[in-house]
Amino acid sequence: MNTHPARGMRDFLPEDVRRRQYVIDVIAGVYQRYGFEPLETPAVENIETLMGKYGEEGDRLIFRILKRGEEGKSGEADLALRYDLTVPLARVVAQYRAQLPRFFKRYQIQPVWRADRPQKGRFREFYQCDVDCLGSTSPIVEAELCAAVSDVLDRLGFKTFDIIINHRALLTASLKQLGFVAEQHSDVITLIDKVDKIGLTGLRTELRQKGFSETQVEGVCRNFLHDDIGPSLGADWLDFYARDLDLEGHPSITNLKEIFTLIRATSAEGRVKFEPCLARGLSYYTGAIFEVKVEDLAGSLGGGGRYDNLVGMFSGREVPAAGFSLGLERILVVMTERGMFPDAARLRPADVMVTICNFNDGVDELELKAEALRLAAQLRSGGVSVEVFPDVTDLGKQIKYAGERGIPFATVIGARERDAGRVGLRDLASRQQEDLSVGELVTYLQDKKLTADSPEPGAARG
Amino acid sequence: MNTHPARGMRDFLPEDVRRRQYVIDVIAGVYQRYGFEPLETPAVENIETLMGKYGEEGDRLIFRILKRGEEGKSGEADLALRYDLTVPLARVVAQYRAQLPRFFKRYQIQPVWRADRPQKGRFREFYQCDVDCLGSTSPIVEAELCAAVSDVLDRLGFKTFDIIINHRALLTASLKQLGFVAEQHSDVITLIDKVDKIGLTGLRTELRQKGFSETQVEGVCRNFLHDDIGPSLGADWLDFYARDLDLEGHPSITNLKEIFTLIRATSAEGRVKFEPCLARGLSYYTGAIFEVKVEDLAGSLGGGGRYDNLVGMFSGREVPAAGFSLGLERILVVMTERGMFPDAARLRPADVMVTICNFNDGVDELELKAEALRLAAQLRSGGVSVEVFPDVTDLGKQIKYAGERGIPFATVIGARERDAGRVGLRDLASRQQEDLSVGELVTYLQDKKLTADSPEPGAARG
Repeated sequence: MNTHPARGMRDFLPEDVRRRQYVIDVIAGVYQRYGFEPLETPAVENIETLMGKYGEEGDRLIFRILKRGEEGKSGEADLALRYDLTVPLARVVAQYRAQLPRFFKRYQIQPVWRADRPQKGRFREFYQCDVDCLGSTSPIVEAELCAAVSDVLDRLGFKTFDIIINHRALLTASLKQLGFVAEQHSDVITLIDKVDKIGLTGLRTELRQKGFSETQVEGVCRNFLHDDIGPSLGADWLDFYARDLDLEGHPSITNLKEIFTLIRATSAEGRVKFEPCLARGLSYYTGAIFEVKVEDLAGSLGGGGRYDNLVGMFSGREVPAAGFSLGLERILVVMTERGMFPDAARLRPADVMVTICNFNDGVDELELKAEALRLAAQLRSGGVSVEVFPDVTDLGKQIKYAGERGIPFATVIGARERDAGRVGLRDLASRQQEDLSVGELVTYLQDKKLTADSPEPGAARG
Repeated sequence: MNTHPARGMRDFLPEDVRRRQYVIDVIAGVYQRYGFEPLETPAVENIETLMGKYGEEGDRLIFRILKRGEEGKSGEADLALRYDLTVPLARVVAQYRAQLPRFFKRYQIQPVWRADRPQKGRFREFYQCDVDCLGSTSPIVEAELCAAVSDVLDRLGFKTFDIIINHRALLTASLKQLGFVAEQHSDVITLIDKVDKIGLTGLRTELRQKGFSETQVEGVCRNFLHDDIGPSLGADWLDFYARDLDLEGHPSITNLKEIFTLIRATSAEGRVKFEPCLARGLSYYTGAIFEVKVEDLAGSLGGGGRYDNLVGMFSGREVPAAGFSLGLERILVVMTERGMFPDAARLRPADVMVTICNFNDGVDELELKAEALRLAAQLRSGGVSVEVFPDVTDLGKQIKYAGERGIPFATVIGARERDAGRVGLRDLASRQQEDLSVGELVTYLQDKKLTADSPEPGAARG
């Protein structure tokens, strides 16, 4: 029988889960510090909720679930698996507007599913870590999103990263100038977004194939992708760029300059750079757009932007919104490759192994087991995590097993220890053993636990 | 447009998520203390992995996912949503046996999906909290499972609960004595399991309808469901019951007695009771079976047992196993109804609201916003969680909003505070305001945070 997980899906064994949980805890901790609150939505949505929100390509990649009761008959699908966390958020805001705060700041860390062709680093089930603020058009929202994401990366140990920023309204204003009509913008923006993959030559070819004039093709390359245009810091360069495009004083320029000013007052200062070719593929963005770039890494760790019209698609009433989404899987890949996880000591399965040995000193095996469980209960009530070896076998084997499991200590009770009311504690690294009372043992192991644990608050979990 | 979640599915708004996360953190914390490690499996499994494992009823309730690329054509489903956490565990153990420890102790807290008819308290997406030990037949496994579950309920604040226990092999031995052949056992066990719902009369009727003799029908009622048989403590009563059934010395009796002896050495002492009519519906159990009963609550909060043959269905090689599954949704319902969640103070969205007010003292609005963000950054780097009001409006409105959000403090900066290099801190409960330096403010709010937080380690999260 096939025991592999389904294609493009993954099992996470304990060490994987701990690493994932460590990153999730850091992200959630930072977002909470910014006043964002947790939201969770169901994995399964009505199919109409999702269809038509992600473009043709997106619709094709949505996993559809067969209507209940009709299985195998009509083949009709009425449900679908969540494709991202933004559309469910828009639905939630439309549904619960009255009971949500005026400024709804939420984070959401949950899996999404896409029927993409699996590749190295691309899966059919993967986690998104989204943070969004709904209800405000203030540039404080964009500044705080950048600051929060910057803090997350900083706390995870990323040293060199940029948040690049552009503005969807600046892109469209410039496209308009070049003679593209509104219906063509989405196509051109999608191509600009793909320039990393297809190159300038590919971009020119594809634009020509779509029947755009040579002036338009060269205009796109000059305005967004000229060699002289590189990501650059801040407001001064922005003025220069706006003058060059004859878009001085355009609302998008004013908005970007405000965002830059506010970012200088946050921990993201110096991290955020303007990049005219940043386009973001999704069609729902209306304002500032962002992406996280890490040194020596192709692609991004996440992105986001302002999307003031999406909630209106559900409620008929527009609610301004902006957000950022970090990709957990890419963060994990980079952190694993670069050895960025904290000391493996914290990832051990238990602080101590309680062994059960029959030294043929006349104690019944069931009583030996009960004795082990009593000791384990005392240690656990002192906050120590304990694995009990479940069988009465050779002590050497039990100690060896504890070592293989990465458990640093093992307890041993023989007739001598029992008579003295003490417990032998063996340090598996030094192979030293000393006799302690149960009280001393609890204190000793608590101390060791504290030393091994980092000060990272969420890290002891999961 | 319909903005409800799909039928039988739920959105969890921030307060819901916090409560769920609180319970999950307690459960995970206890399981870790017992040396169990976290496992996560994909929501989506190959359909063959799930079919035929849960009986006819179960198969019917599995959500099926349409084959990719064939949507709407053949209607063929090749994937399905996880129905429980036990079958994926068995698949994982078969797949990764070589890299897993000899005794694989894992916990798994994830949602499952069942296309059941939704009812009060019954959902189509719900979380299971499973804990299992694979690789050992030792009764220490059952004793530790009961102890861990008992610790979970204790830490969640449940005062009066029992873990009832029975043995599948005792049930089948007794059914054999009554003349039921092996193929009939599963049917009869399912009926005994349903006696809570159908009553003794219903049980008699259904057994007769299946064509069993009057002797058999009355034998079932006498052996498992007689009025004189109530849940009872421990090994002595077990001997009496075994004598009555002429099953003295049966391996199931010996096993139960060992489990009872070991449980007396754990924190579950006095919590575990023998109940002859406990049957558990699932067919894969082979040994001890359990269920958690809480006073004044119909049904159970969870259950489990030993299932030594399930992994063999995947790998061809049998691996002994036993586990316990707690139902998160029922625990939450009971804890909410009984007001068992800790102080609401800990559930506030932020420790302080930073307001932005224009007192017409000549400071530019953008600079006021930057000033607010600088203050927020300083507070956050001191571990304080901060919400920044995003607009420059009337101070009273901002303070009112902070109060409605349950945020206990608000900062105010006017010309006087600015000139003195200080910040006004308003206590929203007492309406008192005092001026502090930023350093004093951080210390003050850190202290308040510590006082409000409980010592429960995971509680600050989520």
